[in-house]
Amino acid sequence: MRTIKGPGIFLAQFIGDDAPFNSLDAIADWASSLGYKGLQIPTNDPRFIDLATAAQSQGYCDEILGKLRDKGLSITELSTHLQGQLVAVHPAYDTLFDGFAAPEVRGRPDARQEWAIKQLKLAAQASRRLGLTAHATFSGSLAWPYFYPWPQRPAGMIEEAFDELARRWRPILDTFDENGVDLSFEIHPGEDLHDGATFEMFLDRVDQHPRANILYDPSHFVLQQLDYLAFLDIYHARVKSFHVKDAEFRPSGRTGVYGGYQSWVDRPGRFRSLGDGQVDFGQIFSKMAQYDFPGWAVLEWECALKHPEQGASEGAPFIARHIIPVTNRAFDDFAKGG
Amino acid sequence: MRTIKGPGIFLAQFIGDDAPFNSLDAIADWASSLGYKGLQIPTNDPRFIDLATAAQSQGYCDEILGKLRDKGLSITELSTHLQGQLVAVHPAYDTLFDGFAAPEVRGRPDARQEWAIKQLKLAAQASRRLGLTAHATFSGSLAWPYFYPWPQRPAGMIEEAFDELARRWRPILDTFDENGVDLSFEIHPGEDLHDGATFEMFLDRVDQHPRANILYDPSHFVLQQLDYLAFLDIYHARVKSFHVKDAEFRPSGRTGVYGGYQSWVDRPGRFRSLGDGQVDFGQIFSKMAQYDFPGWAVLEWECALKHPEQGASEGAPFIARHIIPVTNRAFDDFAKGG
Amino acid sequence: MRTIKGPGIFLAQFIGDDAPFNSLDAIADWASSLGYKGLQIPTNDPRFIDLATAAQSQGYCDEILGKLRDKGLSITELSTHLQGQLVAVHPAYDTLFDGFAAPEVRGRPDARQEWAIKQLKLAAQASRRLGLTAHATFSGSLAWPYFYPWPQRPAGMIEEAFDELARRWRPILDTFDENGVDLSFEIHPGEDLHDGATFEMFLDRVDQHPRANILYDPSHFVLQQLDYLAFLDIYHARVKSFHVKDAEFRPSGRTGVYGGYQSWVDRPGRFRSLGDGQVDFGQIFSKMAQYDFPGWAVLEWECALKHPEQGASEGAPFIARHIIPVTNRAFDDFAKGG
Amino acid sequence: MRTIKGPGIFLAQFIGDDAPFNSLDAIADWASSLGYKGLQIPTNDPRFIDLATAAQSQGYCDEILGKLRDKGLSITELSTHLQGQLVAVHPAYDTLFDGFAAPEVRGRPDARQEWAIKQLKLAAQASRRLGLTAHATFSGSLAWPYFYPWPQRPAGMIEEAFDELARRWRPILDTFDENGVDLSFEIHPGEDLHDGATFEMFLDRVDQHPRANILYDPSHFVLQQLDYLAFLDIYHARVKSFHVKDAEFRPSGRTGVYGGYQSWVDRPGRFRSLGDGQVDFGQIFSKMAQYDFPGWAVLEWECALKHPEQGASEGAPFIARHIIPVTNRAFDDFAKGG
Amino acid sequence: MRTIKGPGIFLAQFIGDDAPFNSLDAIADWASSLGYKGLQIPTNDPRFIDLATAAQSQGYCDEILGKLRDKGLSITELSTHLQGQLVAVHPAYDTLFDGFAAPEVRGRPDARQEWAIKQLKLAAQASRRLGLTAHATFSGSLAWPYFYPWPQRPAGMIEEAFDELARRWRPILDTFDENGVDLSFEIHPGEDLHDGATFEMFLDRVDQHPRANILYDPSHFVLQQLDYLAFLDIYHARVKSFHVKDAEFRPSGRTGVYGGYQSWVDRPGRFRSLGDGQVDFGQIFSKMAQYDFPGWAVLEWECALKHPEQGASEGAPFIARHIIPVTNRAFDDFAKGG
Amino acid sequence: MRTIKGPGIFLAQFIGDDAPFNSLDAIADWASSLGYKGLQIPTNDPRFIDLATAAQSQGYCDEILGKLRDKGLSITELSTHLQGQLVAVHPAYDTLFDGFAAPEVRGRPDARQEWAIKQLKLAAQASRRLGLTAHATFSGSLAWPYFYPWPQRPAGMIEEAFDELARRWRPILDTFDENGVDLSFEIHPGEDLHDGATFEMFLDRVDQHPRANILYDPSHFVLQQLDYLAFLDIYHARVKSFHVKDAEFRPSGRTGVYGGYQSWVDRPGRFRSLGDGQVDFGQIFSKMAQYDFPGWAVLEWECALKHPEQGASEGAPFIARHIIPVTNRAFDDFAKGG
Repeated sequence: MRTIKGPGIFLAQFIGDDAPFNSLDAIADWASSLGYKGLQIPTNDPRFIDLATAAQSQGYCDEILGKLRDKGLSITELSTHLQGQLVAVHPAYDTLFDGFAAPEVRGRPDARQEWAIKQLKLAAQASRRLGLTAHATFSGSLAWPYFYPWPQRPAGMIEEAFDELARRWRPILDTFDENGVDLSFEIHPGEDLHDGATFEMFLDRVDQHPRANILYDPSHFVLQQLDYLAFLDIYHARVKSFHVKDAEFRPSGRTGVYGGYQSWVDRPGRFRSLGDGQVDFGQIFSKMAQYDFPGWAVLEWECALKHPEQGASEGAPFIARHIIPVTNRAFDDFAKGG
Repeated sequence: MRTIKGPGIFLAQFIGDDAPFNSLDAIADWASSLGYKGLQIPTNDPRFIDLATAAQSQGYCDEILGKLRDKGLSITELSTHLQGQLVAVHPAYDTLFDGFAAPEVRGRPDARQEWAIKQLKLAAQASRRLGLTAHATFSGSLAWPYFYPWPQRPAGMIEEAFDELARRWRPILDTFDENGVDLSFEIHPGEDLHDGATFEMFLDRVDQHPRANILYDPSHFVLQQLDYLAFLDIYHARVKSFHVKDAEFRPSGRTGVYGGYQSWVDRPGRFRSLGDGQVDFGQIFSKMAQYDFPGWAVLEWECALKHPEQGASEGAPFIARHIIPVTNRAFDDFAKGG
Repeated sequence: MRTIKGPGIFLAQFIGDDAPFNSLDAIADWASSLGYKGLQIPTNDPRFIDLATAAQSQGYCDEILGKLRDKGLSITELSTHLQGQLVAVHPAYDTLFDGFAAPEVRGRPDARQEWAIKQLKLAAQASRRLGLTAHATFSGSLAWPYFYPWPQRPAGMIEEAFDELARRWRPILDTFDENGVDLSFEIHPGEDLHDGATFEMFLDRVDQHPRANILYDPSHFVLQQLDYLAFLDIYHARVKSFHVKDAEFRPSGRTGVYGGYQSWVDRPGRFRSLGDGQVDFGQIFSKMAQYDFPGWAVLEWECALKHPEQGASEGAPFIARHIIPVTNRAFDDFAKGG
Repeated sequence: MRTIKGPGIFLAQFIGDDAPFNSLDAIADWASSLGYKGLQIPTNDPRFIDLATAAQSQGYCDEILGKLRDKGLSITELSTHLQGQLVAVHPAYDTLFDGFAAPEVRGRPDARQEWAIKQLKLAAQASRRLGLTAHATFSGSLAWPYFYPWPQRPAGMIEEAFDELARRWRPILDTFDENGVDLSFEIHPGEDLHDGATFEMFLDRVDQHPRANILYDPSHFVLQQLDYLAFLDIYHARVKSFHVKDAEFRPSGRTGVYGGYQSWVDRPGRFRSLGDGQVDFGQIFSKMAQYDFPGWAVLEWECALKHPEQGASEGAPFIARHIIPVTNRAFDDFAKGG
Repeated sequence: MRTIKGPGIFLAQFIGDDAPFNSLDAIADWASSLGYKGLQIPTNDPRFIDLATAAQSQGYCDEILGKLRDKGLSITELSTHLQGQLVAVHPAYDTLFDGFAAPEVRGRPDARQEWAIKQLKLAAQASRRLGLTAHATFSGSLAWPYFYPWPQRPAGMIEEAFDELARRWRPILDTFDENGVDLSFEIHPGEDLHDGATFEMFLDRVDQHPRANILYDPSHFVLQQLDYLAFLDIYHARVKSFHVKDAEFRPSGRTGVYGGYQSWVDRPGRFRSLGDGQVDFGQIFSKMAQYDFPGWAVLEWECALKHPEQGASEGAPFIARHIIPVTNRAFDDFAKGG
Repeated sequence: MRTIKGPGIFLAQFIGDDAPFNSLDAIADWASSLGYKGLQIPTNDPRFIDLATAAQSQGYCDEILGKLRDKGLSITELSTHLQGQLVAVHPAYDTLFDGFAAPEVRGRPDARQEWAIKQLKLAAQASRRLGLTAHATFSGSLAWPYFYPWPQRPAGMIEEAFDELARRWRPILDTFDENGVDLSFEIHPGEDLHDGATFEMFLDRVDQHPRANILYDPSHFVLQQLDYLAFLDIYHARVKSFHVKDAEFRPSGRTGVYGGYQSWVDRPGRFRSLGDGQVDFGQIFSKMAQYDFPGWAVLEWECALKHPEQGASEGAPFIARHIIPVTNRAFDDFAKGG
């Protein structure tokens, strides 16, 4: 058994224009002061990391690592959530996702997709230079508008969509393999990889690629009422990254899982600060210990109610409290009392 | 209190090319032999009813009514589910829904929409001629691909969609009002009116139109984990039609509410024959009695496992057994024992 | 083990001014035609039984027994619910209960109480003449307005009330003992004996009188959220009568156990026809078999929704279906398979 | 959204004859030292506040406010629970409640009622002088002995009782309105206003008076098994005061909601120190934030087991931990990660 | 999908010395009259089948089959539960199991084991001659006294026990393979194969032998609180036989799963007649349909309370009611209504 | 009411060969530094206590007490779990338990049993000299292999086993009585006293011996799904010792209560560090207060995942937090608020 690493923090929801949220240096000091030991860094904002440079320059990477080390921090993973999303976009969402892309490819879906694939490959190289073994991203989606079988889906539609998805991701997975880095897809509504069944469909089409792995975030399973504990029992061998994020789902006579087009605060399913939701982290961390999870416990924070800085400051001790320092002697050895 | 009418049967899922499922006469005999007392009739197949003729000819209507009366049957409602769907179609589903339209308007969304609206108005007139007080339909949808807030919805998008939806339906509602018929929207995933919250948004935009009502089908609430009993507590005054349809939702570690693009039999949420699912019909019929529901209990059958004719033959006694013949003396009168 | 007797029916809620509910003969025919085997007969209406006569005349009793025997019916118990109630009345309820008494003692609480005690003693004698071994009644109440400890109860108030209650009932219990009949108090809200704790307090004060027993009616336990199955585990040796009556308790955000002064149909706790409520009769009849209950399973019907005659006609087969014909060979004898 | 104020403490259960519980000064120091920021002050003990003086003298009020401000304390509300109780007393409780009244009106119900009404009006004036916007009280009760429909209630009895209750309270409500103060009725067993249904009956009879509001105390809902979370969904707009009090309800085979006349420690429903009971305060404080509750979170402490000073010392950090500092940026703004 | 065969009945618990329970002819008439279509026949009583003869004589087998066919009956499986048990016996149970053996090998464990193995092989041959494809048995047990890790088990003890168990069963499995018959081990407490984990340990040691299969009996899973539905999700491909047997587990403060050495009627876990226990047969039969179970639904009856003949007579309609005649058209074909 | 003593710690699972776990002095310092106030000391290791000496020498005992007192520690109880186990051993476990005995009696069951009985008597004397009032042990077992009624138990087998068990323990109980010490049997799987039913069987056979008492450890009840809270309601008068030990039971489709011969970490039922399992200690400590438990709350630690020293360091504050300082004034006195 292995003791899970942490607490880490995903920076995406904290980045902003005001100090200390506007530079890697400042945000790292802030995170460290709250008790975090690791940062998960988005790669679409050069104030935090310049992805192209990091992919090519070992010196640049060493400098970042050194600076963070001095603050008692590691990098947990880089994130290309937004770029990964753009690897596969259904036209219904073309406009809405366009802002994620570099300005020069906006409005041109094909160029955007090509750009996104390149970004992912850069991320593989940068991760290697930074000594990382896992990377966080989204799969994007080609079939999401058809998740519900009304209207009835034409035969073969889903199969074709997944064939195409696999075609796009396989070269990326190979690049990650060459760089010795696991690609962790965050299983997430809106992505084609949104549960175990879809992950299996994808895995079959990339021939069980050893780098096709999972970023496990239980909050997204609460919101779709998937059994997030049984998920670990089934897929633990593929789980390489972990978002510690809380959520609650409290349906009423007014609305249920689809949320009635309401805003986050009024939806039955909504994200919450750690400890304020329904996720049973005690059991999750127990399974992580039992299954020898090799990575980091990284806070992802979104909360419909609580102030983000409060959420961040409660998050580090919450995670620390849940980490199980594993035992090093066989349990049966000392089962000699009552 | 009022004793609910029934059992009725919705014909849509039984219609086919073989006898007795290929003509009104034959299917009526079959339904009657199973114990049904009412038929809910789809209006897109002239073998069962010719909508245009029924809208104009009292004789035609009287003939149908007489024929059914001789078999011990009433009409519960006409249905324009498929036509209603076409009143509002998001482009992502254009192709998939096109087959619902009359051949002459296929492939031309604007003409199709105009045709659909006319169909609805014909249905209002036909319903009046048939002596009916309620009519079953779907609202269609303009915003469904955006039910989940990822990608983030542009401000005002939902509001605009509902404004437009109301613009399209208001003249239809007025026509129904002129004909003295309630329009019952089946609250259903994939439709903009898919829960209580969206029904309220719509109602606000049609100024609480007295003909904007609800077809209550608990199976769709089970599949979205909405509290279908509390729904009746809140919206009972607007419920004018009722589909008695069963369903179950049994998520696992593999998949949840979105179903992982699986086929019906492998989805955690799936429809079942009456009594084989999780719907608590005892409580539903109790609330129907308590709230004085004025309409029919109409079987809608879809089941991922059981043979449809078995489902139909079990449905009539199931519904009959659940109908509560209400008491006609005040309960407190005789509360004199133990 | 013993097979429970039944189905029986308590006549109180059916008695009325129209045939067949206005004479013993007619109501017995009606009950027998529905499948009932036993009648529990209230004693305050001479159209059904004349209590004073029955107490004195063996001939009168034999005639009734013979008449019922010809219809395939037995008497399960006589009931003095209304008279028992008048043995102990708190002044706050003086007016409300007064109508239960014989006209000549109304308005005079002391005379009324004396009359009630005499009625009970007559019932003991009549029961003996009718060959009965159990009798159904209420304890009445002296302290009910003070069940909730607000306002705070003066020290000793409850103890004094129970001392007095025991003083009034002990001579009645002795009379029942002389006649060889068990007195079954229906445990019921509004009575001082409304749960196990109060029954124990009473039992202590009548020195564990062997004739102080229980009429078990689970519906009253559902409405007070008492564990009606555990009740049988604790008190089964004292349970001599059994009302098969169903109920449900479904609190909301509007009201709970006290019911907000609403009418029965609108209270969260309300009685229901057999099978329409929440009582787990499967487990109750199992425990009755396991604990060798010696008496009858007697329908008591009150339902906030369903027509009483429907309730009665469903009740007999419901009870028959739940009666467990017990095994006559030791289970372990044939545990030889898989 | 608004961050709820607190922690406050209701002094009633702590007042005593020994220091520091015998003067406002001393008890304020004690409360402040435990971390409380606000005091809810009963008005029947001049050692803490002299109600008549406070109603008339701004100087007296300012002096109190200043003294508390120096200790870092505010007044949350004044309380007239005991006087409000005496506005409406059913004769069955006349003796038991009499001790709440001023000595000069004891034993004379009419005079007592008049005195109570005057007390309430003084409280309105005093509250205004103290800069308060809400006031805590009880409604009293005229019909409580008849909450259970056995014996059957005469037609109109409840309606008359509520008409009379409204007649008594309307002038008080008007006085509160003149003083710009909300009157918060604690919804409580034993009061006519003991749940949502009764509150609505009252509200209808005072024409939806804007000053007729609610003191929300979930412990009383646990004990009557009312859904205290749904209560907030329905009545949040009327909730102006909040008692943070815990409770548990654990029925057995011996006793249920009525408690079998047992003492508090032996009742299935009993109050507990914060965190020791069943109330889900996480959800309550979330709803308070979501619904923009404008007032204070005030500890009310009663516990069948724990020492009161232990309860008080645990209460302040418990409440502080549950207060949600609300977010000040729109959630959707930063939903850009995983 | 396939419609499950049934209802069948396992004869073991009904065989006795009185007619009609003392000959195959008579018991077959009795079973057929109750509505059964298949018999599962124990092989240790020549009044029902002579195993040695059946193994060798096709004429004998044809005669039995013909006789049963005339009564409308099939054989579902033969059973060697008792002989299979004797393939592996831990010395602690030597005496208790000895009576299962033929008289000539009693008291001699080695000879008894040899005899048992021969019996199994005869059963394989007899099954082939009878045209059967599955056979029901027990695995026996070598390690059962050590299921609880107190006292601590010596390292390797369990592994050795399973190695030995596999050594004994492999030749039997091969014989079954030669005869084209699946060997269904009933997963059962007291056997080494008592849950999924132990079945997997065994399967690994017989190299995933295709004839090593499962007799699924949910009652034994209820009593060990194993998730009997998830069991089907995992092991359905190996389930070849099915006992429809009900059970309940209702622990108390007195005793739990081990049952305190009580008799069956007083144990928290006990078998019940169909419908009287806690098994959710609706879900089981749904999974059987979904997973294309190829065999029979066979009543096994043991009940701590109910008379066996009552149990048998209720069993056939219970099973018939649960069998799902599967649909023969694709569900998505007609998903065209509401 | 009484405030429970604690936190204490049972040393058995911590004793080892490295400091500070290898001497009483060192381990006492360690325990004290973590916040423990009491030690439960096993008696089979003279490095911690020499049982024979302690039984005879008051000086030796006073020295130990003094040394511990200086560290702020008390002894809670001595433990003879291992010796008690040897008072009754079924032959199936002879080898496995043999290592618990003194070397000179190993391999000789009769001598071993005699030795064990002597050890218990020494423990009685030593406890008296140490001023203790309770002592912790195991009952041993004669019938455990037969807890499940398969194979069927011969009539009278269990009764004989318990008769013999009582014969062996009665003289020990008498010795404890002479020394004024309660003997607390830990109710534990594998022991004949493994639940309430078996404890009652034993108690009946030692004539309700006043020294035959219970060591209550809820973890063992979780693992057998016995209601550990109801256990206290029934047996509280006999509970004299208390192990605060946590556990969880999470069955799956693979395995249930018997655990499939798996190792601790893979069993559905497994022990956990305090707070990591399912035991509701809040309710347990409440009942301990309510029932006036006279003893200590003693941590027993075993955890399949967490490091033991982490478990010990979390245990003391966990217990301290759960101890309820009981109130010293009657609750009803101050029930005067809201």
